[in-house]
Amino acid sequence: MSEIKYPAGVRPFAENTRKSASNKKKYTPKIAAGNRGMDFEAGINETNAYYAEKGLCCITKRPTPINVVKVDYSKGATITQAYFETQSTTDYNGVYQGHYIDFEAKSSHSKTAFPLSNIPLQQIEHLERVIAHGGIAFFLLHMVQHHEVFLLTAEFVIRFYREHPRASIPYADIKEHGYLVPEGFRPRYDYLPVLEAVFLK
Amino acid sequence: MSEIKYPAGVRPFAENTRKSASNKKKYTPKIAAGNRGMDFEAGINETNAYYAEKGLCCITKRPTPINVVKVDYSKGATITQAYFETQSTTDYNGVYQGHYIDFEAKSSHSKTAFPLSNIPLQQIEHLERVIAHGGIAFFLLHMVQHHEVFLLTAEFVIRFYREHPRASIPYADIKEHGYLVPEGFRPRYDYLPVLEAVFLK
Repeated sequence: MSEIKYPAGVRPFAENTRKSASNKKKYTPKIAAGNRGMDFEAGINETNAYYAEKGLCCITKRPTPINVVKVDYSKGATITQAYFETQSTTDYNGVYQGHYIDFEAKSSHSKTAFPLSNIPLQQIEHLERVIAHGGIAFFLLHMVQHHEVFLLTAEFVIRFYREHPRASIPYADIKEHGYLVPEGFRPRYDYLPVLEAVFLK
Repeated sequence: MSEIKYPAGVRPFAENTRKSASNKKKYTPKIAAGNRGMDFEAGINETNAYYAEKGLCCITKRPTPINVVKVDYSKGATITQAYFETQSTTDYNGVYQGHYIDFEAKSSHSKTAFPLSNIPLQQIEHLERVIAHGGIAFFLLHMVQHHEVFLLTAEFVIRFYREHPRASIPYADIKEHGYLVPEGFRPRYDYLPVLEAVFLK
């Protein structure tokens, strides 16, 4: 794989991260940031349901890990105390034509970059293991302000992460090294032909 | 695949299911049935951790799906009302030498059979999809009273299920069509060489 090149004038480090933080303030979201992430997730879930229906692949979302502390059995097993845990793997995995598929969906609300602070180290390590065992690993990245979704290979993101932890991947790099995923009505984010072209041809 | 043969005298239907129910009463468990299932699960988790450490495969447990109804943010995001949901897929999946692996772990406390009432239809349908897409799918079945763990191919279990829904797979059939998984200290349940022999040789 070729080395990552930074277009002239683009500094992928802390400067950009700070800029993206101030962007977030300037573009006051009309819906909560969490919900916007949920919309992207919902779109991917719809896409996977569509693919399953058409018999194209079997890719599912891993449930959010929750640490259950108290369960009230007098109310038919109601969980009354529990905490969200960090996903130590990725959000999605499954099988396509016998191949193991593993990916993470992320949204960036910055216009200029994808801040890697969004990715826990555990996730990077998980993706490294997936690649080592011959799986197909990638990110689906929603650049919210550009209304674009990119497939970034996990290899690309991992290398960037390992070289510049806590940095941000500049938008120019995303456009250069990522693959645009067509958006539509059904499927919402048609990433399967992109995956096919990037990893299997 | 050859047809399932019932050894003379073995009736895999309701009779056996009832027998297993009465067995449960006779052999009063010293620890709760739920916990015994957890012990098996814990052993598989240990096995997967061992495999990951040795770089042999990357197979993880899917978190239990939980429907979160109320979260108290005043206490640092404490979930105060939630409900367990049925797993619509299986408990475990991952990648081994590029192959997609998907399996479910079950315990049977009956001496004579594995009651299929333990398996929700959704799980059967999920495994059918996995097979259709070229994945490797199976059950790890703990026959608690025999202190034995078997790998049963999903194909075998699905066929039995489709022919005799709500029945039980007799122990004799499990022994004939299943593959014994060696138990040890580390790894606890060494299923990977069995998987290799059954599916990849």
